[in-house]
Amino acid sequence: MTPKVSRFLHDVAPATPCLVVDVDRVAENYARLKAALPLARIYYAVKANPAAPILSRLVDLDSCFDAASLEEVNLCLANGARPEAISFGNTVKKESAIKAAYDAGVRMFAFDSEPELRKLARSAPGSKVYCRILVGNVGAEWPLSKKFGCEVEMARELMVLAGELGLDPFGISFHVGSQQTRTDAYEAAIAKVGLLFTDLKNAGVNLRMINIGGGYPVRYRSEVPEIGAIGDAIMGAMVEAFGNALPEMVVEPGRFIVGDAGVVSSEVVLVSQKGKDDPVRWVYLDIGRFGGLAETEGEAIKYAFRTPHDGGAEGPVTIAGPTCDSTDTLYEKSNYRLPLALDSGDRVELLATGAYVTTYASQGFNGFAPLAEHYI
Amino acid sequence: MTPKVSRFLHDVAPATPCLVVDVDRVAENYARLKAALPLARIYYAVKANPAAPILSRLVDLDSCFDAASLEEVNLCLANGARPEAISFGNTVKKESAIKAAYDAGVRMFAFDSEPELRKLARSAPGSKVYCRILVGNVGAEWPLSKKFGCEVEMARELMVLAGELGLDPFGISFHVGSQQTRTDAYEAAIAKVGLLFTDLKNAGVNLRMINIGGGYPVRYRSEVPEIGAIGDAIMGAMVEAFGNALPEMVVEPGRFIVGDAGVVSSEVVLVSQKGKDDPVRWVYLDIGRFGGLAETEGEAIKYAFRTPHDGGAEGPVTIAGPTCDSTDTLYEKSNYRLPLALDSGDRVELLATGAYVTTYASQGFNGFAPLAEHYI
Repeated sequence: MTPKVSRFLHDVAPATPCLVVDVDRVAENYARLKAALPLARIYYAVKANPAAPILSRLVDLDSCFDAASLEEVNLCLANGARPEAISFGNTVKKESAIKAAYDAGVRMFAFDSEPELRKLARSAPGSKVYCRILVGNVGAEWPLSKKFGCEVEMARELMVLAGELGLDPFGISFHVGSQQTRTDAYEAAIAKVGLLFTDLKNAGVNLRMINIGGGYPVRYRSEVPEIGAIGDAIMGAMVEAFGNALPEMVVEPGRFIVGDAGVVSSEVVLVSQKGKDDPVRWVYLDIGRFGGLAETEGEAIKYAFRTPHDGGAEGPVTIAGPTCDSTDTLYEKSNYRLPLALDSGDRVELLATGAYVTTYASQGFNGFAPLAEHYI
Repeated sequence: MTPKVSRFLHDVAPATPCLVVDVDRVAENYARLKAALPLARIYYAVKANPAAPILSRLVDLDSCFDAASLEEVNLCLANGARPEAISFGNTVKKESAIKAAYDAGVRMFAFDSEPELRKLARSAPGSKVYCRILVGNVGAEWPLSKKFGCEVEMARELMVLAGELGLDPFGISFHVGSQQTRTDAYEAAIAKVGLLFTDLKNAGVNLRMINIGGGYPVRYRSEVPEIGAIGDAIMGAMVEAFGNALPEMVVEPGRFIVGDAGVVSSEVVLVSQKGKDDPVRWVYLDIGRFGGLAETEGEAIKYAFRTPHDGGAEGPVTIAGPTCDSTDTLYEKSNYRLPLALDSGDRVELLATGAYVTTYASQGFNGFAPLAEHYI
């Protein structure tokens, strides 16, 4: 928690549940990533947190933007982004959304299938396109399965087809999974892309861009590699794959830019036991999985907690949200311990929750309104 | 899909994604349940779908309401419900919410722990209270774990304490899990409550109500028991447990009342393959897990689909939502098959989706607005 957020929570004591984000910390994270990967263009993954104060601050820093939908494209434009600075990065788009983004000046689009490529040829003629390939996600705490990307052989054929369809076959992208805590996932993926570049060059297609996606980790309960070490590993793999003919590099950080800039403040609604001799207390908060903490599904992302009783004696707890849905349970198996003195009415902070919280919040499950947001 | 919904979709062709609910079907389901369990008072579980046209129709039918939050209490009141017809059924409540509901006239509250009981004694003095106990959920497709309810021994002590604290120790509740497809879960739970009634009578506490919760199933892909058979099993267990001194019976249906009254209409955004020889196609819809289909988590609830090409040749598919999140995948392991002719732009209907969809919808994940709602 940054001193500014801490002060705000103390002085203002905003109604819970709410998210407080230190926008200066967003700028610092942008600078840290820039320093770790000076050759890369940063496309902020808007989906991580699309709040206007974050987007406009990043526009000031000359960031580019990775948009997942036409709505996100429009949000970037409304906050001052130039259309040339926007990549429409979702490989699954309605053709009407492609057309509208193109009409607004967007000229860079992702795809991973022939039907999508043909939509782009029809509705975004001449645009730069990049194909997303499937790579391993080992080491990611929020892995991405096979939903996006295609096999390398298919990517090769599609990039040839892209040129034939009048599009600009610009590059290749991949994603090693979110909250990626290992560097070998990047190294293996970059080597794979290097081979594909060579292969396509032999076929007469000169790619110019590699998009290494996001996934850069944020510290929750456990230590994670420093961004400098990740940057070094990526650049090492780039030189090994491309020698001194490095293509343009694109990165799409989301969590890394906003994660540790934000804190969710909540209230304890109840602390109870299921039986008199049960050693585990249940702690119910006024925010849960359907109030925005969706990434606790499967206890994947393990947030750190701060309570007014920290330092006192602790005991094992199950932590749950306020709704009547049993799946609205945050942590049951991850060995969380909280102070024995914790009680109804106490305020509890969830640290490093600036990313992937506000937009996940349900519009009103069990009648609860989405959490409030404060950007300071 | 009811004829009225079918006609509406054909004539109006509303923008997707959207939910269309036949409110007459809601009334029919209410009547069906009433016929199956004539001795029970129906408390509609507002969380299943809190839309005003549903609540006001149920008010006209003299339904009672099970509210999960102060916001839902207020919604019921705003739609004409009398405060005496409302049960505040969440066992986890802020004391400020208890006080506000009590001030509005609500006099029936759930609890499952001593701290919550003491909140009720302070802020809802003299109210009828019922304790939720833990029971087995075998047979439920959306089971409820240990989040709500306490051990029977604890319930016994708490009901004695309730009287001492000036509350009215009214009854016992349980929940066998949502979309419960077996009747033995009800039978075992009712027998457990019967023993507790006797035990408490011997301790001088005369309980008068049994709340057998909800869970009554809706037909999705597979056949489920008829509500008449479930009603018979419940009444058989009641007579066995209580003889002819039957207590008041309360039921809290949600899914059963609104589930098959609604249909989600969506558009196919893309149909693609991951590799040329991959036999499984990926079908991406414009609604997914974060657009409201939250109950597809773990592929728990298996919706049935209707497409414009039904009857034609089919092949295996993975079905996913429109966002850049891999967990936004609906069905990958449940052996869904859809027509080979299915393509981008086709409309697809998800049947029996009137319950637990609209309120789960995220307020804007990846920029997508919540689905539209039509009550006809």
